[in-house]
Amino acid sequence: MGMIGGGPGAFIGAIHRIAANMDGEIELVCGAFSSDMEKSMQAGASLHLDRDRVYGSYKEMLHHEAGLSANERMDFVSIVTPNHLHFEPAKLALENGFHVVLDKPMTFDLAEAKQLKAIVEKSGKYFCLTHTYTGYPMIKEARQQVLSGKFGAIRKIFVEYPQGWLSEFVEGTGNKQAGWRTDPAKSGAAGAMGDIGTHAFNLAEYVSGLQVTQVCADLYRVVEGRKLDDDGAVLLKFNNGASGVLIATQVAAGEENNITIKLFGEKGGLVWKQEDANSLFIKWPGKPTEIWRAGENYLSSVAKHNCRTPAGHPEGYLEAFANHYRNFALCIKAGMTGEKPREEWLDFPGIEEGLRGMMFIESVIENNRSDKKWIEIK
Amino acid sequence: MGMIGGGPGAFIGAIHRIAANMDGEIELVCGAFSSDMEKSMQAGASLHLDRDRVYGSYKEMLHHEAGLSANERMDFVSIVTPNHLHFEPAKLALENGFHVVLDKPMTFDLAEAKQLKAIVEKSGKYFCLTHTYTGYPMIKEARQQVLSGKFGAIRKIFVEYPQGWLSEFVEGTGNKQAGWRTDPAKSGAAGAMGDIGTHAFNLAEYVSGLQVTQVCADLYRVVEGRKLDDDGAVLLKFNNGASGVLIATQVAAGEENNITIKLFGEKGGLVWKQEDANSLFIKWPGKPTEIWRAGENYLSSVAKHNCRTPAGHPEGYLEAFANHYRNFALCIKAGMTGEKPREEWLDFPGIEEGLRGMMFIESVIENNRSDKKWIEIK
Amino acid sequence: MGMIGGGPGAFIGAIHRIAANMDGEIELVCGAFSSDMEKSMQAGASLHLDRDRVYGSYKEMLHHEAGLSANERMDFVSIVTPNHLHFEPAKLALENGFHVVLDKPMTFDLAEAKQLKAIVEKSGKYFCLTHTYTGYPMIKEARQQVLSGKFGAIRKIFVEYPQGWLSEFVEGTGNKQAGWRTDPAKSGAAGAMGDIGTHAFNLAEYVSGLQVTQVCADLYRVVEGRKLDDDGAVLLKFNNGASGVLIATQVAAGEENNITIKLFGEKGGLVWKQEDANSLFIKWPGKPTEIWRAGENYLSSVAKHNCRTPAGHPEGYLEAFANHYRNFALCIKAGMTGEKPREEWLDFPGIEEGLRGMMFIESVIENNRSDKKWIEIK
Amino acid sequence: MGMIGGGPGAFIGAIHRIAANMDGEIELVCGAFSSDMEKSMQAGASLHLDRDRVYGSYKEMLHHEAGLSANERMDFVSIVTPNHLHFEPAKLALENGFHVVLDKPMTFDLAEAKQLKAIVEKSGKYFCLTHTYTGYPMIKEARQQVLSGKFGAIRKIFVEYPQGWLSEFVEGTGNKQAGWRTDPAKSGAAGAMGDIGTHAFNLAEYVSGLQVTQVCADLYRVVEGRKLDDDGAVLLKFNNGASGVLIATQVAAGEENNITIKLFGEKGGLVWKQEDANSLFIKWPGKPTEIWRAGENYLSSVAKHNCRTPAGHPEGYLEAFANHYRNFALCIKAGMTGEKPREEWLDFPGIEEGLRGMMFIESVIENNRSDKKWIEIK
Repeated sequence: MGMIGGGPGAFIGAIHRIAANMDGEIELVCGAFSSDMEKSMQAGASLHLDRDRVYGSYKEMLHHEAGLSANERMDFVSIVTPNHLHFEPAKLALENGFHVVLDKPMTFDLAEAKQLKAIVEKSGKYFCLTHTYTGYPMIKEARQQVLSGKFGAIRKIFVEYPQGWLSEFVEGTGNKQAGWRTDPAKSGAAGAMGDIGTHAFNLAEYVSGLQVTQVCADLYRVVEGRKLDDDGAVLLKFNNGASGVLIATQVAAGEENNITIKLFGEKGGLVWKQEDANSLFIKWPGKPTEIWRAGENYLSSVAKHNCRTPAGHPEGYLEAFANHYRNFALCIKAGMTGEKPREEWLDFPGIEEGLRGMMFIESVIENNRSDKKWIEIK
Repeated sequence: MGMIGGGPGAFIGAIHRIAANMDGEIELVCGAFSSDMEKSMQAGASLHLDRDRVYGSYKEMLHHEAGLSANERMDFVSIVTPNHLHFEPAKLALENGFHVVLDKPMTFDLAEAKQLKAIVEKSGKYFCLTHTYTGYPMIKEARQQVLSGKFGAIRKIFVEYPQGWLSEFVEGTGNKQAGWRTDPAKSGAAGAMGDIGTHAFNLAEYVSGLQVTQVCADLYRVVEGRKLDDDGAVLLKFNNGASGVLIATQVAAGEENNITIKLFGEKGGLVWKQEDANSLFIKWPGKPTEIWRAGENYLSSVAKHNCRTPAGHPEGYLEAFANHYRNFALCIKAGMTGEKPREEWLDFPGIEEGLRGMMFIESVIENNRSDKKWIEIK
Repeated sequence: MGMIGGGPGAFIGAIHRIAANMDGEIELVCGAFSSDMEKSMQAGASLHLDRDRVYGSYKEMLHHEAGLSANERMDFVSIVTPNHLHFEPAKLALENGFHVVLDKPMTFDLAEAKQLKAIVEKSGKYFCLTHTYTGYPMIKEARQQVLSGKFGAIRKIFVEYPQGWLSEFVEGTGNKQAGWRTDPAKSGAAGAMGDIGTHAFNLAEYVSGLQVTQVCADLYRVVEGRKLDDDGAVLLKFNNGASGVLIATQVAAGEENNITIKLFGEKGGLVWKQEDANSLFIKWPGKPTEIWRAGENYLSSVAKHNCRTPAGHPEGYLEAFANHYRNFALCIKAGMTGEKPREEWLDFPGIEEGLRGMMFIESVIENNRSDKKWIEIK
Repeated sequence: MGMIGGGPGAFIGAIHRIAANMDGEIELVCGAFSSDMEKSMQAGASLHLDRDRVYGSYKEMLHHEAGLSANERMDFVSIVTPNHLHFEPAKLALENGFHVVLDKPMTFDLAEAKQLKAIVEKSGKYFCLTHTYTGYPMIKEARQQVLSGKFGAIRKIFVEYPQGWLSEFVEGTGNKQAGWRTDPAKSGAAGAMGDIGTHAFNLAEYVSGLQVTQVCADLYRVVEGRKLDDDGAVLLKFNNGASGVLIATQVAAGEENNITIKLFGEKGGLVWKQEDANSLFIKWPGKPTEIWRAGENYLSSVAKHNCRTPAGHPEGYLEAFANHYRNFALCIKAGMTGEKPREEWLDFPGIEEGLRGMMFIESVIENNRSDKKWIEIK
């Protein structure tokens, strides 16, 4: 693979590289890690890349790689830049025949997202949007159980994503991560709702197999001087009549990264918390709660496909991330050999999830400005 | 004490009696347990009461007891009837010079609540509304810590109260508890919001020391045929600029009684869950989370006053309930001896909390019918 | 009931009184709370007793109460003195026709225990030894599940009881509780093993339905200057071939009262922790772990009989304690009415459990002095 | 790196490869995956190795690789065969100038371990024994806190390692993992004590910084027909006067892999459970328990060096394993560049830990046969 972004000081680039490395099936062969050629070279050197596969711009890289022979050039590109630098490189990569992994939220705004969707569809290439949390095996298990109908019709979906790291005005202290995430020119219209709200939204739709149709949003810029929302709650209506609540805040001082989903159907429900990611709690009226565990043989085949170790050997965030890369790579590899990709390989978030996320952001931002209670997501 | 309601088949009456008994300071001396004299006598017999102190109506009881000599008659009355039978007996008791313990929500509607407030104030009697959850020592500790200012200004308050016992149409099966709670003629305008939403609301205001000023409500009658809301979420705005979310549902199939509060200020936050009631989690950015525990010597004096056992000997729901009774009784006793009641004795929910609860119910019901996002609580 | 011991400054006396009060079926009518008449009167007054039912010695009390008419005198006596003052009052009470509740460990030594057994058997009176932890509903459920055979033959039993309150030489600071518990003249041959090791031992035998046959003990006096063991571990062999480990320590600095049992059979196992007393974890190979919860309708009738509140309303230590009192009282009451006591009423620890505890103490103390690995319990 | 063992059907070989891959610093370049050349080739192909770097025996591989030029040949070898096949390949690798990673327990018996120690010392090569659990960042933090003296002198160390996967006679069903682990010809003198007891032993000595001096062992072959111990408990005495208990069982039906350590000093203690690996509980008398969390900035530099993600993004077993590989590789790399390895890089288990483990095994086996309570470890 090749990488765009992820140079010195970046957080998510390193995570992508570990996730891609993990299973020994993906090799980083080139990168445009920074628009500053020197920084890009520095990153490339520390990653043991050939100097002539390190580039000073994504354009140069995509152009040059496209000119290499099929067995020499990268098979796909991973784009890990801030939101405002997602669309152009993704477009160019797809148009040059590369599969694309893209960090979330998908684009700067909904218009770009719609364009990108058309481009992906036209390209026929694989496209993966790294909503990490749906890579966890117990989230895949949760979805399988919901889809199986064992809970009956789903009635309630609660997702919350509390973080505390933006409790103070850290963007004023030179914190690079905080800097672009709170800057409307780089993040887009939403702050916390874009950065982590979209994760929660994706989790809700993925696990439930449903779609949000209406939202009622209440967003805040809690920290003085901040330019984007850092906190908010959204009431949700789903396309089957279910309802729910989404909470996304980055000012829950003392919280780390405690994304959680609780879902209830007519007959029972489930609870999953990322901080105890290897357990899925299944709840029943009149019967003991069950703790389903990653790595166990009784899981669905989809969940088991996404486990690397036996039960009791905890897998974490990096493994969840790696699952998206592995499934994406398995699909590409199948494409090379003419094999039909298996259903569990195709189970990674893609262009549709990305578009839904951008629709969510725009609806929430619009409704938040309004006195009207509800707005349609579209 | 005397009791009104709580005859055969009642749930909360028995709980009140255990709570009152626990510390050996309160003796049940009379009761009008049912409007059916035979059932009332049956209850009285099983409770070892003198037959002539068992009554067939609250009017008879209050009249008769008021005529007894001061050292013979009951000191206070505990009213544990359904909501529509709260106001009249409470009024009569207060007017006859008895202190009153009343189950929540306080009255059938807000108009009654306002009237009752005037009556209580005029009477000069003690009035306790049994919002059980604020009787827990770690909730009292939580409030003390918030009031101390250690978290800075409070920014976010999340309360949720999920139950699952109304996931099916149990009121159709003769379930007495479900019957009156889902009957608008007995419960009032609200179902889940009145029954458990008011608990969550009270918890939020008690722990934060703040008042909710505006709500945005989204209520549902999830189970077909049900006459009152059995589920809902409410966005909250507080009088200091903080915001929050309140969730109250009785259709979270598989949940028992998992009332929870999470509160965050500028500098840190706290989490408490009733199902782990003896622990209070205090969270800090950049420092380890702390688990404060009931019974420990390092707690505030208010919290310690409400513990009976050393740390590691869990106290539960009945002890929390008993704390309200004990504090109420200590105040009455102080009144008898002319002693000034200590501040921690006065710390039980009363007429003001009851009125706030009724204001919450009416606002939520009204806003739920509206397309407008927010409504003032008043 | 009457009480012997439990005067000012005592801990366990107050606990016994709350436990006895809780269900409104037992009334404290007399007491010899201290051998200092003034202190006894002071305790009696604060407990609202008639002055002429407060005594300065247990002998005076038992003599005087025995002389009262049947419907006037106490029905049973609760003895809450330190260990060296258990035997004589218990003997005298039984010989005077009173049922007896006695705190654990049963006697000062095994010789006394054997004598007491003969006296109890001769008396035909009910005798309850307050091993609190077997009063928890989920411990009763655990026993029922083990006895049902669902786990197959039991293979492993682990019990641990860590406390930290004796981590320092608190007996040197005037701490009354620590004083007598670390004094061989009052506690007997064992410190921690007698005070809390016997609880763990009782829990192991009760839940498993088995008997320990051999022990290998390793005891310590960790804190300098202490006169009795404050820490120890004991390897266990059971009469069905199972084995186990018992840990009892009072120098686990920072632990509160974390008594725990884990038991495994051929087919599955269970885990219970007192600090999460309302949950019982049932473990299966190849199936999800189950969380069985107090108050749920699916529990065994024995467990349900020992619950007061619906699921999700936590019951704690005092309720567990109260269960022993309630069952003991139900048996006495049945005796009065000629009713046959139900099996679940008879399910409280008695003379046999007391004798087993004293056998455990003596075996452990003897083996600890020896180089030989094992000693028979007898 | 090169790999010896880890062919089709092996469990731990795949784990080693993921761990080595994770950080992108180690490349698998050759392997002798099986003594069956065909199987070895099959493994090599699936791992994308050059065919001429896949070997049919470790001897062939070590001989051939040693003959390659310095920048071509592997830098170190990872040996992941069953215990009886550890010594010879490790010896040959070291003698041919390769650094060695070896799975635990180190050798077939203590005699081999002593020999290997001499060989390692003579070779001057790095040697890593993969006791995974000491690779967890919160275990490294635990050790740092103990060594800092904050708990005072350590008094008690409890380690337990319960698994349930050998609850039945699975070695009779063709289970390859169970087959060699229960075969004295392959595993050595100990079963569970060698396989998982040595992990617990290593954890106890690593975290405490102490050495076990005496043991009292009670081992069982619980499952009929089994040839080695599958369960046992060991009382421990440490070189500073502390004592403890080690439990290792593979017949705790329903347990997964729940390795746990609890340690108490004069002033406080700590608890860590692998199934909640990112939390370290620090306990204090008279102060709230603290939850220290992986990824937080307040951790010791050693712990932080072993984290890859910010707090709240759980890292698991594979990351702990990868930490040993990364530190080992950092040391080798430092050796290549003449840099002095940093202290935290040197913090991986090596020959001394391996020798201690074999001493533990032999002492435990010998004492278990004896009626004498204690035996010295040596």
